[in-house]
Amino acid sequence: MTSSLLVVGSVAFDSIETRAGKRDEILGGAATYISLAASHFAPINLVGVVGEDDFPDEHVELLTSRGVDITGLHRAPGRTFRWAGVYADDFSSRTTLDTQLGVFADFDPQIPEAYSGSRYLLLGNIHPALQLKVLDAVDAGCFVAADTMNLWIDTTLDELKQVIARADLLVINDEESFMLTGEPQIATAAPKIIEMGPKYLIIKRGEHGAFLFTAETTFFAPAVPLADVIDPTGAGDCFAAGLLGLVAGTDSTDPATIKRGMVYGAATASFACEGFGVERIATVSRDEIEARFQTLRDLVSLD
Amino acid sequence: MTSSLLVVGSVAFDSIETRAGKRDEILGGAATYISLAASHFAPINLVGVVGEDDFPDEHVELLTSRGVDITGLHRAPGRTFRWAGVYADDFSSRTTLDTQLGVFADFDPQIPEAYSGSRYLLLGNIHPALQLKVLDAVDAGCFVAADTMNLWIDTTLDELKQVIARADLLVINDEESFMLTGEPQIATAAPKIIEMGPKYLIIKRGEHGAFLFTAETTFFAPAVPLADVIDPTGAGDCFAAGLLGLVAGTDSTDPATIKRGMVYGAATASFACEGFGVERIATVSRDEIEARFQTLRDLVSLD
Repeated sequence: MTSSLLVVGSVAFDSIETRAGKRDEILGGAATYISLAASHFAPINLVGVVGEDDFPDEHVELLTSRGVDITGLHRAPGRTFRWAGVYADDFSSRTTLDTQLGVFADFDPQIPEAYSGSRYLLLGNIHPALQLKVLDAVDAGCFVAADTMNLWIDTTLDELKQVIARADLLVINDEESFMLTGEPQIATAAPKIIEMGPKYLIIKRGEHGAFLFTAETTFFAPAVPLADVIDPTGAGDCFAAGLLGLVAGTDSTDPATIKRGMVYGAATASFACEGFGVERIATVSRDEIEARFQTLRDLVSLD
Repeated sequence: MTSSLLVVGSVAFDSIETRAGKRDEILGGAATYISLAASHFAPINLVGVVGEDDFPDEHVELLTSRGVDITGLHRAPGRTFRWAGVYADDFSSRTTLDTQLGVFADFDPQIPEAYSGSRYLLLGNIHPALQLKVLDAVDAGCFVAADTMNLWIDTTLDELKQVIARADLLVINDEESFMLTGEPQIATAAPKIIEMGPKYLIIKRGEHGAFLFTAETTFFAPAVPLADVIDPTGAGDCFAAGLLGLVAGTDSTDPATIKRGMVYGAATASFACEGFGVERIATVSRDEIEARFQTLRDLVSLD
């Protein structure tokens, strides 16, 4: 059985520079990456906001061509969220050059009536107060996966902890796990975060893969060692998208599905890195994702 | 069938400071770690040098109690090699405080007659000219695994390249693979190094695990996510020891054995981190290593 995935997050224009080149104001934002990537696994219900006048039809058409329901994509007076950044040559770090929140500053996520009954939610990295608002709006029993970032750990920790307490699955990176707990290693940080509430804790380590921690088990999904990274923007979002896409698409949240979902997430994320912005994620086929899933399984096979 | 493993490298006194504590002049050196760790898998023939007067009998007895043949442990006039270093609190880097080569400065590795016929050699990180000398002394047909370090890439690249050309297996870390090739990613560095000669290339990434590259395949062995790192000194040596120990112990160099060996290497290396110096490696049992091997396989199992 397949269920739809509710995705709440940013839709943006990104200006990106990497050693592979430079692109200005291309389509980006966590909710965009997630919707396009997860659409290979499940029907997507998108909630986001863009500027009334500056968001081109071609971007809307890209989303709808992938079957994404954009009933919840609000058009507000003002400009679409813009972000600009430059990556180090080895992609180990990036520097933000500019952030213009535009209409995203007043983002007030509304869940359309048409989306009611969504049983899977992927809460992108937005202000924890907004995440809590979305949590109040979805059905009890909805499986909640939440992302966050260092900014909210620094500035709104109390509200973030309420989000974490209500999340079934939390996906963060290793630095964020250290910030949240004061622990210097993921093996000691993980149990402290699981005590905060989530059944599933996923700690991402970029090109070094991702760990799953639960009270009972630990699992590791390596990343594909890529020869041709073009632009890693959105890779983390696509990882979560592959994971939650599989969960919603198979209507299952057992540990075996979460583990398989992480491998699909790693496969999906690897494609995100192979083009600027959503270039590659927009064109990749499910067969290509399946082939890379197999590559990732072969990577750890003793045979 | 079991064959012996010839180990050539440093025997030293290490002074180590980590956030877990401080130890002065404890037993160390690559050949020591390798011999103790690999002794769980195969008989070990050690070649190294120590000071005539300052190397205590208890260290010799520790080695022989593990069945290590020390016929090739030369006692030379002078002091044993000493190293001192301090680790960052998160173990992401270490700073060398002092190096006193002592008798290691004139190390002239001699393979005793008793070791002739060794079919497996693990060449620790010593000057490439000495590595070449050892290669000339062992039988043709001996399976050669070699380690190296950034210093030799910087200072004696020509000789190092001759070692690499004659090695069946090269084990280095990611930074060294970048230095050797000028490539910024292991996926592009690996094929260039394989072209230099080794059939098997292993690129270690510390706590992030290790990759195997051959002309035909790629394999990844994760590291155990440790909650209680005490001292990572020698972990890389113990990784190579578990791998080459399995190879010699099973008298097999096929890709399946190399892959299993890497998982044993990761298991063995994890114990090295759990005590200062060789403390934990000296006391760990084969059963404990087997249990951790299974933990590492479960870590990537979808079941």
